[in-house]
Amino acid sequence: MSASNIFQIPPELPADELFEALCDRENLLIERIISSGQTTPPGEWYDQNRDEWVILLQGEAQLAYEDGSTCNLGAGDYLLIPAHQKHRVAYTSSEPPCIWLAIHFS
Amino acid sequence: MSASNIFQIPPELPADELFEALCDRENLLIERIISSGQTTPPGEWYDQNRDEWVILLQGEAQLAYEDGSTCNLGAGDYLLIPAHQKHRVAYTSSEPPCIWLAIHFS
Repeated sequence: MSASNIFQIPPELPADELFEALCDRENLLIERIISSGQTTPPGEWYDQNRDEWVILLQGEAQLAYEDGSTCNLGAGDYLLIPAHQKHRVAYTSSEPPCIWLAIHFS
Repeated sequence: MSASNIFQIPPELPADELFEALCDRENLLIERIISSGQTTPPGEWYDQNRDEWVILLQGEAQLAYEDGSTCNLGAGDYLLIPAHQKHRVAYTSSEPPCIWLAIHFS
């Protein structure tokens, strides 16, 4: 059995966020997301069918909610985003890139 | 919405490993485990009914398997331990303590 390392990221990141499924099952998706400055376009919202438990492992980011509230995240910060809680990513750092671990489940 | 931080651990750790459910559902358990030198007693094995995806976020550790193989883990290393794959924790660092994020699912 060997392990992979979540902090090993490509030396050159693409223009878009990088999504990688680390474990994909019928009721569960564990994915790594690498962001480097990308945000959700203003006025657009994630409206997900499944609950998402997410932890930021590197970088700094801000989530914004439909009610106008925001949540600043640093390395190690985690939270639950219930299904259909509309949210957007308002900020992601590029130096260093954000490394997210997201767990989607139903 | 506010976030919690997985790296915030009690200043004084108990003698036993510390298990904390961060998200507990019927088919899913996300838990933080803090180890500070504890190991699975020699000859004892974890034999779990559910798959476990686990990532070590701080510290150093070693897993051992029934076939004699081992896996050394550092910060950021992750792997899947399939259900009923017998394993034991052969080493955990205490300086710094090991912070694990384990996702149990079926």
